[in-house]
Amino acid sequence: MKLIIAIVQDEDAPGLIEDLTEEEYRVTKLASTGGFLKSGNTTLLIGVEDEQVDNVLNIIEDTCKTREITTSLMTVTMPGDTYIPYPLDVKIGGATIFILDVEKYIRV
Amino acid sequence: MKLIIAIVQDEDAPGLIEDLTEEEYRVTKLASTGGFLKSGNTTLLIGVEDEQVDNVLNIIEDTCKTREITTSLMTVTMPGDTYIPYPLDVKIGGATIFILDVEKYIRV
Amino acid sequence: MKLIIAIVQDEDAPGLIEDLTEEEYRVTKLASTGGFLKSGNTTLLIGVEDEQVDNVLNIIEDTCKTREITTSLMTVTMPGDTYIPYPLDVKIGGATIFILDVEKYIRV
Ligand code: NI
Ligand code: NI
Ligand code: NI
Repeated sequence: MKLIIAIVQDEDAPGLIEDLTEEEYRVTKLASTGGFLKSGNTTLLIGVEDEQVDNVLNIIEDTCKTREITTSLMTVTMPGDTYIPYPLDVKIGGATIFILDVEKYIRV
Repeated sequence: MKLIIAIVQDEDAPGLIEDLTEEEYRVTKLASTGGFLKSGNTTLLIGVEDEQVDNVLNIIEDTCKTREITTSLMTVTMPGDTYIPYPLDVKIGGATIFILDVEKYIRV
Repeated sequence: MKLIIAIVQDEDAPGLIEDLTEEEYRVTKLASTGGFLKSGNTTLLIGVEDEQVDNVLNIIEDTCKTREITTSLMTVTMPGDTYIPYPLDVKIGGATIFILDVEKYIRV
Protein backbone atom coordinates (compact mmCIF):
# COMPACT_ATOMS: atom_id res chain seq x y z
CA MET A 1 0.00 0.00 0.00
CA LYS A 2 1.22 3.48 -0.83
CA LEU A 3 0.04 6.94 0.14
CA ILE A 4 0.28 9.43 -2.70
CA ILE A 5 0.34 13.05 -1.59
CA ALA A 6 -0.33 15.22 -4.64
CA ILE A 7 -0.13 19.00 -4.49
CA VAL A 8 -1.89 20.45 -7.51
CA GLN A 9 -3.24 23.77 -8.69
CA ASP A 10 -6.72 24.61 -7.42
CA GLU A 11 -7.97 24.88 -11.00
CA ASP A 12 -6.86 21.34 -11.81
CA ALA A 13 -8.20 19.73 -8.64
CA PRO A 14 -11.88 19.18 -9.56
CA GLY A 15 -11.02 17.51 -12.88
CA LEU A 16 -8.38 15.34 -11.27
CA ILE A 17 -10.69 14.23 -8.46
CA GLU A 18 -13.35 13.37 -11.03
CA ASP A 19 -10.91 11.33 -13.13
CA LEU A 20 -9.62 9.46 -10.07
CA THR A 21 -13.03 8.66 -8.63
CA GLU A 22 -14.28 7.49 -12.02
CA GLU A 23 -11.61 4.79 -11.76
CA GLU A 24 -12.70 4.01 -8.17
CA TYR A 25 -9.70 5.57 -6.45
CA ARG A 26 -10.44 7.08 -3.06
CA VAL A 27 -9.29 10.66 -2.73
CA THR A 28 -9.22 12.95 0.28
CA LYS A 29 -8.96 16.66 -0.40
CA LEU A 30 -7.28 18.84 2.19
CA ALA A 31 -8.33 22.46 2.32
CA SER A 32 -6.01 24.67 0.35
CA THR A 33 -3.42 27.14 1.52
CA GLY A 34 -3.95 30.68 2.69
CA GLY A 35 -3.39 33.52 0.33
CA PHE A 36 0.20 34.38 1.00
CA LEU A 37 1.67 31.49 -0.92
CA LYS A 38 1.72 32.02 -4.65
CA SER A 39 -1.61 30.88 -6.14
CA GLY A 40 -3.89 28.33 -4.54
CA ASN A 41 -2.82 24.74 -4.11
CA THR A 42 -4.91 21.75 -3.25
CA THR A 43 -3.38 18.80 -1.46
CA LEU A 44 -4.84 15.38 -2.21
CA LEU A 45 -4.28 12.15 -0.27
CA ILE A 46 -4.70 9.02 -2.38
CA GLY A 47 -4.24 5.56 -0.86
CA VAL A 48 -3.46 2.93 -3.49
CA GLU A 49 -2.20 -0.59 -3.88
CA ASP A 50 1.45 -0.75 -4.99
CA GLU A 51 0.50 -1.87 -8.50
CA GLN A 52 -1.87 1.08 -8.98
CA VAL A 53 0.75 3.77 -8.38
CA ASP A 54 1.78 4.14 -12.02
CA ASN A 55 -1.80 4.42 -13.22
CA VAL A 56 -2.56 7.15 -10.69
CA LEU A 57 0.61 9.01 -11.66
CA ASN A 58 -0.49 8.88 -15.30
CA ILE A 59 -3.90 10.29 -14.41
CA ILE A 60 -2.31 13.11 -12.41
CA GLU A 61 0.10 13.89 -15.23
CA ASP A 62 -2.71 13.91 -17.84
CA THR A 63 -4.75 16.41 -15.87
CA CYS A 64 -2.17 18.55 -14.15
CA LYS A 65 0.95 18.60 -16.31
CA THR A 66 2.58 22.02 -16.58
CA ARG A 67 1.45 23.51 -19.89
CA GLU A 68 1.73 26.81 -21.67
CA ILE A 69 -1.32 28.82 -22.56
CA THR A 70 -1.52 32.01 -24.52
CA THR A 71 -3.44 34.71 -22.75
CA SER A 72 -4.27 38.21 -23.89
CA LEU A 73 -3.31 40.99 -21.55
CA MET A 74 -4.45 44.49 -22.35
CA THR A 75 -1.59 46.96 -22.56
CA VAL A 76 -1.49 50.67 -23.12
CA THR A 77 0.57 51.18 -26.21
CA MET A 78 -0.59 54.48 -27.68
CA PRO A 79 -1.23 58.03 -26.70
CA GLY A 80 -4.93 58.65 -26.27
CA ASP A 81 -5.31 55.59 -24.03
CA THR A 82 -5.73 53.03 -26.77
CA TYR A 83 -5.48 49.51 -25.32
CA ILE A 84 -3.98 46.85 -27.53
CA PRO A 85 -4.38 43.17 -26.57
CA TYR A 86 -0.95 41.66 -26.11
CA PRO A 87 -0.58 37.87 -26.41
CA LEU A 88 1.42 36.35 -23.58
CA ASP A 89 2.54 32.78 -22.96
CA VAL A 90 2.12 31.72 -19.35
CA LYS A 91 2.78 28.39 -17.65
CA ILE A 92 -0.09 26.88 -15.69
CA GLY A 93 -0.70 23.61 -13.90
CA GLY A 94 1.99 21.39 -12.51
CA ALA A 95 1.92 18.94 -9.63
CA THR A 96 4.28 17.96 -6.85
CA ILE A 97 3.88 14.32 -5.86
CA PHE A 98 5.24 12.43 -2.85
CA ILE A 99 4.85 8.66 -2.67
CA LEU A 100 5.15 7.21 0.84
CA ASP A 101 5.11 3.61 1.92
CA VAL A 102 2.16 2.71 4.15
CA GLU A 103 3.03 0.27 6.92
CA LYS A 104 -0.55 -0.58 7.65
CA TYR A 105 -3.84 0.44 6.08
CA ILE A 106 -7.13 -0.07 7.90
CA ARG A 107 -10.74 0.74 7.24
CA VAL A 108 -13.27 0.45 10.05
CA MET B 1 7.42 6.39 16.20
CA LYS B 2 4.46 6.17 13.84
CA LEU B 3 2.30 8.78 12.18
CA ILE B 4 -1.36 7.78 12.03
CA ILE B 5 -3.37 9.61 9.39
CA ALA B 6 -7.05 9.05 10.12
CA ILE B 7 -9.77 10.27 7.78
CA VAL B 8 -13.07 10.29 9.63
CA GLN B 9 -16.55 11.71 9.21
CA ASP B 10 -16.96 15.30 10.39
CA GLU B 11 -19.64 14.21 12.85
CA ASP B 12 -17.30 11.73 14.54
CA ALA B 13 -14.28 14.04 14.74
CA PRO B 14 -15.06 16.02 17.93
CA GLY B 15 -15.78 12.88 19.98
CA LEU B 16 -12.69 11.15 18.65
CA ILE B 17 -10.44 14.13 19.39
CA GLU B 18 -11.86 14.28 22.91
CA ASP B 19 -11.26 10.57 23.51
CA LEU B 20 -7.70 10.78 22.19
CA THR B 21 -6.73 13.87 24.15
CA GLU B 22 -8.21 12.39 27.35
CA GLU B 23 -5.58 9.68 26.98
CA GLU B 24 -2.88 12.31 26.36
CA TYR B 25 -2.46 11.64 22.63
CA ARG B 26 -1.56 14.68 20.59
CA VAL B 27 -3.86 15.24 17.65
CA THR B 28 -3.64 17.73 14.80
CA LYS B 29 -6.82 18.39 12.87
CA LEU B 30 -6.54 19.41 9.24
CA ALA B 31 -9.36 21.48 7.82
CA SER B 32 -11.92 19.36 6.05
CA THR B 33 -12.60 18.99 2.35
CA GLY B 34 -14.61 21.25 0.13
CA GLY B 35 -18.20 20.41 -0.65
CA PHE B 36 -17.82 18.49 -3.84
CA LEU B 37 -16.65 15.28 -2.22
CA LYS B 38 -19.43 13.23 -0.71
CA SER B 39 -20.05 14.40 2.88
CA GLY B 40 -17.46 16.16 4.99
CA ASN B 41 -14.30 14.40 6.10
CA THR B 42 -11.84 15.45 8.75
CA THR B 43 -8.21 14.38 8.53
CA LEU B 44 -6.35 13.87 11.79
CA LEU B 45 -2.60 13.49 12.27
CA ILE B 46 -1.65 11.51 15.37
CA GLY B 47 1.99 10.89 16.27
CA VAL B 48 2.44 7.88 18.56
CA GLU B 49 5.03 5.52 19.93
CA ASP B 50 5.03 2.16 18.18
CA GLU B 51 3.50 0.42 21.19
CA GLN B 52 0.58 2.88 21.30
CA VAL B 53 -0.63 2.19 17.77
CA ASP B 54 -3.07 -0.57 18.70
CA ASN B 55 -4.63 1.45 21.49
CA VAL B 56 -5.19 4.42 19.18
CA LEU B 57 -6.70 2.15 16.53
CA ASN B 58 -9.10 0.78 19.15
CA ILE B 59 -10.15 4.29 20.14
CA ILE B 60 -10.75 5.23 16.50
CA GLU B 61 -12.74 2.07 15.90
CA ASP B 62 -14.87 2.61 19.01
CA THR B 63 -15.83 6.12 17.97
CA CYS B 64 -15.92 5.94 14.21
CA LYS B 65 -16.82 2.41 13.18
CA THR B 66 -19.31 2.20 10.33
CA ARG B 67 -22.71 1.60 11.89
CA GLU B 68 -26.26 1.44 10.70
CA ILE B 69 -28.90 3.82 11.94
CA THR B 70 -32.58 3.87 11.14
CA THR B 71 -33.81 7.18 9.92
CA SER B 72 -37.31 8.22 8.92
CA LEU B 73 -37.65 9.73 5.50
CA MET B 74 -40.99 11.18 4.45
CA THR B 75 -42.33 9.62 1.29
CA VAL B 76 -45.40 10.25 -0.76
CA THR B 77 -47.30 7.00 -0.84
CA MET B 78 -50.94 7.91 -1.42
CA PRO B 79 -53.10 9.93 -3.71
CA GLY B 80 -54.05 13.20 -2.11
CA ASP B 81 -50.41 13.92 -1.15
CA THR B 82 -50.40 11.99 2.11
CA TYR B 83 -46.85 11.70 3.46
CA ILE B 84 -46.00 8.50 5.31
CA PRO B 85 -42.76 8.29 7.30
CA TYR B 86 -40.69 5.49 5.84
CA PRO B 87 -38.00 3.87 8.03
CA LEU B 88 -34.67 3.58 6.27
CA ASP B 89 -31.40 1.98 7.34
CA VAL B 90 -28.39 4.09 6.46
CA LYS B 91 -24.71 3.53 7.11
CA ILE B 92 -22.82 6.31 8.88
CA GLY B 93 -19.32 6.72 10.26
CA GLY B 94 -16.32 4.81 9.06
CA ALA B 95 -12.67 5.71 9.04
CA THR B 96 -9.76 5.29 6.66
CA ILE B 97 -6.46 4.94 8.48
CA PHE B 98 -2.91 5.06 7.16
CA ILE B 99 -0.01 4.18 9.46
CA LEU B 100 3.36 5.51 8.34
CA ASP B 101 6.75 4.95 9.86
CA VAL B 102 8.36 8.12 11.17
CA GLU B 103 12.10 8.30 10.60
CA LYS B 104 12.62 11.07 13.07
CA TYR B 105 10.33 12.93 15.43
CA ILE B 106 11.33 16.22 16.97
CA ARG B 107 9.73 18.79 19.22
CA VAL B 108 11.31 22.18 19.64
CA MET C 1 14.12 12.57 -0.39
CA LYS C 2 12.31 13.29 2.85
CA LEU C 3 8.95 14.81 3.64
CA ILE C 4 9.01 17.07 6.67
CA ILE C 5 5.62 17.63 8.28
CA ALA C 6 5.91 20.57 10.64
CA ILE C 7 3.06 21.63 12.91
CA VAL C 8 3.69 25.14 14.15
CA GLN C 9 1.80 27.93 15.84
CA ASP C 10 -0.23 30.13 13.48
CA GLU C 11 1.73 33.18 14.65
CA ASP C 12 5.06 31.61 13.68
CA ALA C 13 3.94 30.28 10.28
CA PRO C 14 4.35 33.40 8.08
CA GLY C 15 7.90 34.06 9.30
CA LEU C 16 8.86 30.42 8.91
CA ILE C 17 7.47 30.21 5.38
CA GLU C 18 9.37 33.37 4.47
CA ASP C 19 12.64 32.02 5.88
CA LEU C 20 12.22 28.69 4.08
CA THR C 21 11.29 30.18 0.70
CA GLU C 22 14.21 32.64 0.93
CA GLU C 23 16.45 29.58 0.93
CA GLU C 24 14.50 28.11 -2.04
CA TYR C 25 12.69 25.39 -0.07
CA ARG C 26 9.24 24.55 -1.36
CA VAL C 27 6.58 24.73 1.31
CA THR C 28 2.92 23.74 1.17
CA LYS C 29 0.68 25.17 3.85
CA LEU C 30 -2.36 23.19 4.89
CA ALA C 31 -5.29 25.12 6.28
CA SER C 32 -5.22 25.25 10.05
CA THR C 33 -7.42 23.50 12.57
CA GLY C 34 -10.86 24.47 13.72
CA GLY C 35 -11.26 26.35 16.94
CA PHE C 36 -11.76 23.53 19.39
CA LEU C 37 -8.13 22.51 19.59
CA LYS C 38 -6.06 24.74 21.81
CA SER C 39 -4.82 27.71 19.78
CA GLY C 40 -4.39 27.61 16.03
CA ASN C 41 -1.86 25.36 14.39
CA THR C 42 -0.55 25.44 10.86
CA THR C 43 0.69 22.28 9.19
CA LEU C 44 3.47 22.66 6.63
CA LEU C 45 4.67 20.06 4.14
CA ILE C 46 8.29 20.51 3.08
CA GLY C 47 9.92 18.14 0.61
CA VAL C 48 13.71 18.13 0.87
CA GLU C 49 16.77 16.21 -0.18
CA ASP C 50 18.19 14.06 2.60
CA GLU C 51 21.17 16.35 3.08
CA GLN C 52 18.92 19.41 3.54
CA VAL C 53 16.99 18.02 6.50
CA ASP C 54 19.26 19.42 9.20
CA ASN C 55 19.27 22.89 7.68
CA VAL C 56 15.46 22.94 7.52
CA LEU C 57 15.25 21.73 11.12
CA ASN C 58 17.56 24.57 12.16
CA ILE C 59 15.37 27.11 10.37
CA ILE C 60 12.25 25.74 12.05
CA GLU C 61 13.92 25.78 15.45
CA ASP C 62 15.16 29.36 14.98
CA THR C 63 11.69 30.64 14.16
CA CYS C 64 9.41 28.43 16.19
CA LYS C 65 11.28 27.31 19.30
CA THR C 66 9.23 27.40 22.48
CA ARG C 67 10.12 30.60 24.29
CA GLU C 68 8.94 32.49 27.30
CA ILE C 69 7.52 35.97 27.06
CA THR C 70 6.41 38.24 29.83
CA THR C 71 2.94 39.57 29.38
CA SER C 72 0.94 41.92 31.58
CA LEU C 73 -2.44 40.67 32.65
CA MET C 74 -4.76 42.98 34.54
CA THR C 75 -5.86 41.55 37.86
CA VAL C 76 -8.19 42.82 40.53
CA THR C 77 -6.13 43.07 43.68
CA MET C 78 -7.80 45.69 45.82
CA PRO C 79 -11.19 46.59 47.17
CA GLY C 80 -12.73 49.36 45.11
CA ASP C 81 -12.01 47.51 41.85
CA THR C 82 -8.49 48.77 41.37
CA TYR C 83 -6.78 46.85 38.54
CA ILE C 84 -3.07 46.23 38.92
CA PRO C 85 -1.07 44.98 35.90
CA TYR C 86 0.44 41.65 36.86
CA PRO C 87 3.50 40.41 34.91
CA LEU C 88 3.13 36.82 33.80
CA ASP C 89 5.56 34.51 32.03
CA VAL C 90 3.88 32.49 29.29
CA LYS C 91 5.30 29.96 26.89
CA ILE C 92 4.65 30.54 23.20
CA GLY C 93 5.77 28.91 19.98
CA GLY C 94 6.93 25.35 19.67
CA ALA C 95 6.83 22.93 16.76
CA THR C 96 6.10 19.26 16.29
CA ILE C 97 8.06 17.78 13.41
CA PHE C 98 7.70 14.42 11.66
CA ILE C 99 10.30 13.34 9.10
CA LEU C 100 9.12 10.65 6.71
CA ASP C 101 11.06 8.85 4.03
CA VAL C 102 9.78 9.51 0.52
CA GLU C 103 9.88 6.48 -1.75
CA LYS C 104 9.46 8.49 -4.89
CA TYR C 105 9.20 12.19 -5.63
CA ILE C 106 7.84 13.46 -8.91
CA ARG C 107 7.09 16.84 -10.41
CA VAL C 108 5.04 17.06 -13.59
NI1 NI D 1 2.88 -1.20 0.77
NI1 NI E 1 9.29 4.31 14.61
NI1 NI F 1 15.03 9.59 0.31
